This record gives sequence, structure tokens and C-alpha cells, in this order.
Amino acid sequence: MAERFFSEKNLAFTLFNVHDIESLLAADHFNEYTRESVDMIIGTAKKIAVEHMFPIFSEMDKNPPKYVDSTIRVHKKVRDFMSLSGEGGWISAIFSYEQGGQQMPVSVYNACQFIFASANYSLSVYPVLTTGAVNLILTFGSDELKETYAPHMIAGKWQGTMALTEPEAGSSLGDVRTTAELTEKKYYLIRGQKTFISAGDHDMTDNIVHLMLARIKGAPAGVKGLSLFVVPKFRPGDSGALEFNDVNCAGCYHKMGYRGAPIAQLSMGEEDDCRGWLVGEPHKGLRYMFQMMNEARIGVGLGAVGISSAAYHAAFEYARERLQGRNITEKDATRPQVPIIEHADVKRMLLQQRAIIEGALSLMVYAGKLVDLAHVAAGEEKERCELLLDFITPMVKTYPSEMGVVSTSLAIQCLGGYGYSDEFPVEQYMRDVRIHPIHEGTTGIQGMDLLGRKVTMHKGRAAGIYLEEVEKAVAAARAFTELAAYADKLASAVVLLKQVTGALVGIAVKGEIDRFLADATLYLEMSGIICIAWQWLLQGVAVQKALPAAAAADRDFLEGKFITMKFFFEYELPKIEGLRTRLLSQDAVTLSASPRHFAD
Amino acid sequence: MAERFFSEKNLAFTLFNVHDIESLLAADHFNEYTRESVDMIIGTAKKIAVEHMFPIFSEMDKNPPKYVDSTIRVHKKVRDFMSLSGEGGWISAIFSYEQGGQQMPVSVYNACQFIFASANYSLSVYPVLTTGAVNLILTFGSDELKETYAPHMIAGKWQGTMALTEPEAGSSLGDVRTTAELTEKKYYLIRGQKTFISAGDHDMTDNIVHLMLARIKGAPAGVKGLSLFVVPKFRPGDSGALEFNDVNCAGCYHKMGYRGAPIAQLSMGEEDDCRGWLVGEPHKGLRYMFQMMNEARIGVGLGAVGISSAAYHAAFEYARERLQGRNITEKDATRPQVPIIEHADVKRMLLQQRAIIEGALSLMVYAGKLVDLAHVAAGEEKERCELLLDFITPMVKTYPSEMGVVSTSLAIQCLGGYGYSDEFPVEQYMRDVRIHPIHEGTTGIQGMDLLGRKVTMHKGRAAGIYLEEVEKAVAAARAFTELAAYADKLASAVVLLKQVTGALVGIAVKGEIDRFLADATLYLEMSGIICIAWQWLLQGVAVQKALPAAAAADRDFLEGKFITMKFFFEYELPKIEGLRTRLLSQDAVTLSASPRHFAD
Repeated sequence: MAERFFSEKNLAFTLFNVHDIESLLAADHFNEYTRESVDMIIGTAKKIAVEHMFPIFSEMDKNPPKYVDSTIRVHKKVRDFMSLSGEGGWISAIFSYEQGGQQMPVSVYNACQFIFASANYSLSVYPVLTTGAVNLILTFGSDELKETYAPHMIAGKWQGTMALTEPEAGSSLGDVRTTAELTEKKYYLIRGQKTFISAGDHDMTDNIVHLMLARIKGAPAGVKGLSLFVVPKFRPGDSGALEFNDVNCAGCYHKMGYRGAPIAQLSMGEEDDCRGWLVGEPHKGLRYMFQMMNEARIGVGLGAVGISSAAYHAAFEYARERLQGRNITEKDATRPQVPIIEHADVKRMLLQQRAIIEGALSLMVYAGKLVDLAHVAAGEEKERCELLLDFITPMVKTYPSEMGVVSTSLAIQCLGGYGYSDEFPVEQYMRDVRIHPIHEGTTGIQGMDLLGRKVTMHKGRAAGIYLEEVEKAVAAARAFTELAAYADKLASAVVLLKQVTGALVGIAVKGEIDRFLADATLYLEMSGIICIAWQWLLQGVAVQKALPAAAAADRDFLEGKFITMKFFFEYELPKIEGLRTRLLSQDAVTLSASPRHFAD
Repeated sequence: MAERFFSEKNLAFTLFNVHDIESLLAADHFNEYTRESVDMIIGTAKKIAVEHMFPIFSEMDKNPPKYVDSTIRVHKKVRDFMSLSGEGGWISAIFSYEQGGQQMPVSVYNACQFIFASANYSLSVYPVLTTGAVNLILTFGSDELKETYAPHMIAGKWQGTMALTEPEAGSSLGDVRTTAELTEKKYYLIRGQKTFISAGDHDMTDNIVHLMLARIKGAPAGVKGLSLFVVPKFRPGDSGALEFNDVNCAGCYHKMGYRGAPIAQLSMGEEDDCRGWLVGEPHKGLRYMFQMMNEARIGVGLGAVGISSAAYHAAFEYARERLQGRNITEKDATRPQVPIIEHADVKRMLLQQRAIIEGALSLMVYAGKLVDLAHVAAGEEKERCELLLDFITPMVKTYPSEMGVVSTSLAIQCLGGYGYSDEFPVEQYMRDVRIHPIHEGTTGIQGMDLLGRKVTMHKGRAAGIYLEEVEKAVAAARAFTELAAYADKLASAVVLLKQVTGALVGIAVKGEIDRFLADATLYLEMSGIICIAWQWLLQGVAVQKALPAAAAADRDFLEGKFITMKFFFEYELPKIEGLRTRLLSQDAVTLSASPRHFAD
């Protein structure tokens, strides 16, 4: 089993050298944070990861949740971890002091979430889901809801969930059928089914609190008729004791991976006694949910990067120890075998993983920083950060998710047959990461979001801000001789992206919306590669700045980082060429296919 | 559960319209076969797949082999299936009449193997491995070996294996350490360990017969010192009764997928009483093995295509039934939802799967046809077929394997969250197919084989023959107006391939072998895409020929096929552009990375 699952040096470099998180700490809002305290927080996160999370990583996979007597039984250590997350202040870390939180920068919190995901992704989601749910209550809920729910959830005693999906409403949330009927007692009666609810039921917290989308009777069809409710499994009764709230767990899914977390099916109101409490105003449920969506989607990206990082470290450890073969020019079969890391193709596979992981991690930290900046800035600067975050979110969610499947598969390939066996953790990493292109909005949905909404919103202003940032990085890189060629490559890539975007928007202008969006997923793929190239150029600049004064011990790291940057530009970025060709083609192949063409 | 796992119409079209297998049957060697008998054979294969294989597909995954009391226990139905395979003549189907076989064309046999793999890949390997092993005995073994082993193996009573890999000798077979010491009694004493032996031990046949590589004491180091032995688990004693041959099963691997087949660890000679019988001459073991290697590698490709096909059919079935969302231009949320197959992105995912599967299946049938042609031809024509098959084998093995991972992952994505749960078979397909880029020579090894050996062998003659065939297809396609644009695309792709090949060979000529081969895997990827584009153009020609006289019932199929061909040229072929850019780059990024650059 691998004992390392992320690089501390790379994480610190990304936070401080690439994204200068220290400058952020100068803001009043974060004035209790310093470089030293951030280092301590990361050290604490690592300790938790090593001591509490990784030891049960494989065990949780091999003993997945079981549905027994109408409830889901999960690993016993989940209770300890939720308590630890509550007591350590992790669940409320990013909340303001007034909300009982620690006002931790999201960029720093995300760095810790990356560590947790790399150690044991399934375990890491229990507190994170609780954070998301209680955040909705604290942001939009009444004082009564806050008082009733927030303390237990923040303490890790009650699990929080986001309950959106239904059997007939997955990607199409407008089709949610769960109903809410107002009673005379301020609460609503909830009736309906939910499915695929992460941590939607389990036995390791005293309660499960669902932040649930439902349609108030008489509300309009579609997403505009959805309201947000607090629907606990057990409701606090008049005496304060918990009473069953008619939220019935109907089963759990047995999954390919991500098996430490229970994904529940729920049925509300079987005895017609499921009570829900409205959060905020009626019919604004999806809007509220979506105000948390950017952060949830960064979370998915982070999870994928964390898993990929762990797989990489397992592959790297194997590659430097496993002896197999000799240099291809060595004909003497009596010479000792060499570690496989000496073979070009193995180095290629390791570098590709690093190019994906370190590029994506940089984007994740940057996205967290935008959340922080939007928080401390005001006026135009605040709006700028928000628009930029909105714009990059589809890439933040999708690039690590889709490429995480590729990256973990490469980790398996580095180990050959051993990688396919469960004696090594890499096969689990590939199974675990495969959920990420699906949950919190599939890749297809993200593509539509980017091309159909983000590119054109505010008359292209968000896209403009994004391109300005990329061009700023290109200009900064040109100051270094060693980076000039890569700055040029990114600049050329941006030209292609503008060309493709222009051509597609031209189709939209003609009113051919079907054709405009038919290849949105490929547009997202192309955009994602360029976005990561941008992050790599930022890293290249940081390397060049750090090299002259670098300690001997850091030179290998910096040189390795620079080689990985080159790898991205040499091996990954050229993929946009084929995507460009396709995206500029006039042949709407997929639209020409009808269901009858698939039958035979 | 999906009830269909392959398309009969497409298989027949590929065999008869695209590759004109009927013309092959005119050869004397195959004169007992006709179009009608081939149809019957395929019908029989389908019946076996539906009745005996698919029903235990999921069950075998959920109840994988267990190592108990020094043996591996597998699913009880394996015995029935081996008997059925023996009684039905499947194990010996491709052998000559003199060898007790049916002289079945390999192209037809492969079509059946494709069906079996699509129904239950793990189960399909037990007889196939036996065929491979007994084929070695029949081709290179003594009469005594043939008489002792072949009848039991052909009857499916004894399992055959290929025992090459050792703990320290996976990709580097020259490092095999298992030894063979000649005794006075004509047999050798075998001592050593083998690992990752498929079907290397189980309890559903009466014996396990290993075709094993070992080094005779005093033999040279490396691959030139390896000899091939028959090493049975139980040896026929003087009385005819079976005696234990000191082949000890030390365990089995628990794997990500492909869980119905046991992968064993073996230890020979723990009591110093493991006997092996030499096959053919000493020191020619690897050469013998490699004479079977092309067919084994076609088998891997076929397995991957079969699994991908089954995943596609499950995804297609789901996509046409699952209602979710509306056309993107439909704003009325009260309108009924549509089947997701109506969405462009779902059609894209289905078409991509079909483009991969049908393209690869065509290549598999073609490869089988080359085996057949080489068998019935003589002189230059025979050599031509052999060289061509040698040349395309790395692509035949790798394209379906690598793209099978992509294709099955797309099948999961079509099902969203359901695809990630084991209520649907697609997640198993993705786990099952992931072995294919590893076994029978990893993708990295295939890349080195193509670029380092096949491209330049016989002074480039094999490559030349291949390009002639591709250019022949281009010329044939130009006769059809509808195909002209695609013929041009393939012709341009060949120009790029020649450019890249020329540049790489130029590096080799300068003696920079490390750099020549550093990106061999990418060269193989580029070559594979072009190879499949060629197969698609052949299919396009077959469609154009069939359309004018097509029955109404066949038009949808033919039009769908043509759309899928367009999809390949529009979405898959452009990927070579980025690969070309990388392969022509002067920057040997991977060679510049040393192990120290990975440490931090």
C-alpha cells in the first residue's frame, strides 16, 4: 500500500508560489491567518488524513454500506470521523465568526479537502455534505431553523445532505415531483421520492438532515416552481426529543466505486407525516441551491484531483522499485534489470498523470482563491471575481473528473497486472474516480452550461474577463526566456479557441440552437485543456521566479515541475488541434442520426 | 439487464459485405463451408451465448474464484461450459481435419469468439486458452505428447494454459528464471514460480496442462535460452491414472474485473518432483509461443470489442427508454420528457461507441481473414498475408483494448448515476475491459513492437504492403461520390503518417534509439486511429454497394452505418493532428526527466 498520497511540497508551491495566497491573508476578513497558521492547518489536515482516513480507505471499499432493517449501515469509524470533523471545526471552517465558523479562506480549506480526498474520498464526503447543507440553512434559513439544526450539524452529530435527484428527475431538475403542502402549523407535508442521495441515510450520526427540493402545491412547472426545505429524518419534538419524520430509506446503491459512502433511495410521507420547513422564500429553491453550486462543483473537481494524486503516488512508488527490463539499447541479458521508472514510456505515463493532477490542482486552488477574493472585494472587483468563477466552474468540475479517469487508468497501467489486482490500491482509485464525471451535473450538462450560458452571459463579459486573465499570464511568461515558447503556444491556443467560439456563436446567432450546442462537450474539452495550459504557464512563471534563489533540495522539485509543464504543452495541449477541426466542421453528424439509425 | 449484447446484422455485414468471407470459402481447405453453414455456426454461437453464457455473466463477477485448500474454486457452470465447448467442437474448431479439428476459417471462429466475449468474457477464456495450449502441442509437440494430452484438452476435460509470466519476468520475458533439468527418463525437472496465469488452476476440469517457458540448465541468458514444456498439474502415471505433478497453486488474484476467470500464482517443484516434457527443440520456446502470438493478440482485441459491444447495447437500450429532459429549444416544462437518445450529446456518446466497436470489429474479422488467406495461399501471396498480419497485430491488439476503456466508460456515462450502480451491467463491462491494455503484451510493448520492429522489418516491406492496402481502399472509395471526401481524409491521414514515420526513422538512422522509441505508444495510437479509419472506409464502400438494392428493412441499418462512418472521420480521425504535432516535436521531454525529478 502506498503511504503517500499527495505532495506537500507541490501543494505549498501551488498555494504560495503560484497563487500567492499569502497576499489574500492581508485582507481584514482573513487577518487571523498567516503563512504559518496555514502551514499548521495543512499539517493538521495531513495528520488526520494519515491517522484517521487512509488506514480505512481499502477497508471501506471492501465492506460497503449495507441496507439492513430500513437503514443503511456504514463503517463504524464514520462516527469518529464526523465527531473529529465537528470538534476540529472542519465542518464550519469556512463560515464566518458570526456563524460559528473560523472564516478560513476557501483556498486553504480546499487544499485540506484535496488532502482528505487523496487519503479517502468516500470518508471525506460525510462532513463536506454536512457543510453544504448547513451553509444553505445559515445563508437562507430562518433563525429558528438555524438554532434547531446548525449546532448539531456543525458538531458532526447530524449528517447533512443535498436532496435534489428523483427517479424521473436527474439531469432535468425541473421535473422534480416531490410535493410540499402547507399545513396550519407552519410546516409543510412532504410527499415523494428521492434517489442517489449521497449520505442520504446511515447509522453513524444521530440524525440526517436533508436540504430538499420540492414543489409547493400549485407552484409552476419546471425549475421555477421548486422550493427548498429542511426535511430531517428525525424531527425535534416539543420535548426536544427526536421523533421519526416519515423519511424512509428504501435502499442503497451498490456501486462501482466510491463505496465507502452510502447513496440512498428515500421515500417521504409513506404515513403522510413527513414534515418539511421552508428555507427562504417559496419557488427560489433551485436558485438557493445554485448559489452553492460553484463550490460544490469545485468540491467534485478537488475530489477527482485528490484521488488521481493518490493513484499517481502509488504508481510512482511502484515504478521506482519495480525492476523490469533494461534500456532498449542494452543487449546483454545478464545485466541486472532496471527500475521501470527508467523506461521512457513509464516516465511518459507518470508525467502525464502529474501534468493532469498538478495542472488541475492549481486550477482548484485558483477557484478557491476567487471565492475568497469575491468575499473580501467589493464593487466591480467583486463582480469580476464572481463572473470569472462562474465562467471557469464547468472546467473546474469537468477537467479533473474526466481526466481523473485517464490519470488513474495510467496509474494502473504503470503497475501492469499488479495494477489490476486489489493488492495495490490503484484499481480502487480508478473505480472511485469514475463517479466524478456524473455527480453534481454530468459532463454533458457542464458542456451546455459553458457554451450555452457562460460564454454568452452578460454579453460575453465573463468570457472576456477570463481571456484577459489568460492573456495576462501569457504576457507575464514572456518576461522569461525559458517560457517564451510556451507563452506562444498558449497564445496560439487562445486564437484557436476564439476562432471556434466565434464560429459556434455565429451558428447560435442564426438561430440554429441545436447545432450550436450539439458538440458542447467537445467545446468544454477544448476549453478545459487550454484552461489547464494557462495554469501550467502560471506554474512555469512561479518556477522561473523561484529557481535563482532555490535551495539545492528544492531544485529537483522545481526542475521536475518545469519538465511537467513542458510535458503538458508538448503532449496535452496539441489535443486541441483535432478538437478545433471537429468543432469547425459543418457536418452536424449527431443531429443527422435518428433513433431508427441505431436499431437493426 | 440488457438482453442483447451484439448486433447480428452488423456481424453478418462485416463478414460478408465488408470482407467477403464467402470468397474465402471457395478455397479447397474450406470447401465444406458455405454461407449457409457459416450462418448456422453463428446462430449456434449466439444460442450458446444467450443460453449458457450471459445468464451467469453477473453472477460470476459477484462470486469470483476463491483460493481454498490449495486450489482455486470457480463457478460450477465452468465444467458444463468446458464440456459443451469440447462436445461442440469449439476447442478444436480451427484445427485441421488431421488434427481432429473442423478446419473452420479463423475469421468465422473469431466472429463466434466475439459473440462469446460479448456475452461473458471471463467464461469465454477457459476454452480459448485450452485451444492455444493444445495448438502448441499439436504444432510443435511429439506424437507422444499429442496422444497423451490433445484428446483430453480438445474434449474440454483438461484445461490448457500459457504459463509465461513470473514475479520478476512480466514484460521482460528474457528474465524467466524457472529452470528445467534433464533427467535420465526423458522428462525434465521443473523448478520455479509463475504468476498471473489465466485459468492456471481451478476445480472444474480434471487436469490443468501448462505450456510453460523455462530455462534448461546451462542455456544462455535472455529469450534465446527459453524452452517450451508441457507441465501438467497431474501427470498420467504408468497405470494411466493421474498423479500429482508437484505443480502447486499458491493463490489467486482478486481483480478489478474479469473476475469470472481465475488468475493463479504457481510454484513448481516444491517436492522436487515437478516433471516437464520438452515441446519441440530446446531454446526455441519463445519462438514457438510467438508463432501463436498474433492469434492470441487478435483474441485480446476480440475480447475487448465483445465487451464494448455488450456495454453499447446496454447503453442503447437505456437511452431509448429513459425519459429525461426536453429538446433544448423547448421552454414548456409541462411537455412530456423525451427519451435521452433524442439529445445530441447522448447520440454522440452512442455513435462514438459504435464508431469504436464496429471499426474495431471490422479489423478483427480482417485479421482473421489474413490468417485464413495465409493458410490457403502459397508463395508470395502467403508471405504477403503473413507480413500484413504481423504489421497490423499491434493495432489489432491495442486499438480495441485502449478504446474499449473509453467506449465502456461512455456506456456508463449514458446511464448517468445508474451506470455507476451494479443494477446495470455497464460498470462491470468497464472493469472487465480494463485488463485488455495489460495482458498479452501491454500497450507500451505493442508500441515498441510496431515502431521498433514492424515498421522497419524486411526493410519496410510489411509497412509497404499495409500502405498499399490502405491506398487500395482509398481508390475504391473514390468511385462513390458520397465517399470522395472521406477517401480524401484517409489519404491525407496517410500522408501525415508517412511524414511522422519518416521523421522517426530518421532519428533511428542517426542512432538515437532512445529518442526514436520514446513516444512509440503515441505512434501506435496514431497508427491505430488511421487503421480503423481504413476499416471504416471499407465499410463505407460496402454500404454504398448495398444501398441501391437494399430491402426497406435494411435501409435504416445501412444509413446508420454510414452516419457512424462519418462520425469516425469527423470526431475520431482528427485526433491524429495533435499526435502528429507531438510526434514531430524535437523536444524529448520524457528522456529529459530523471527519477530525481519525480521525488520531492
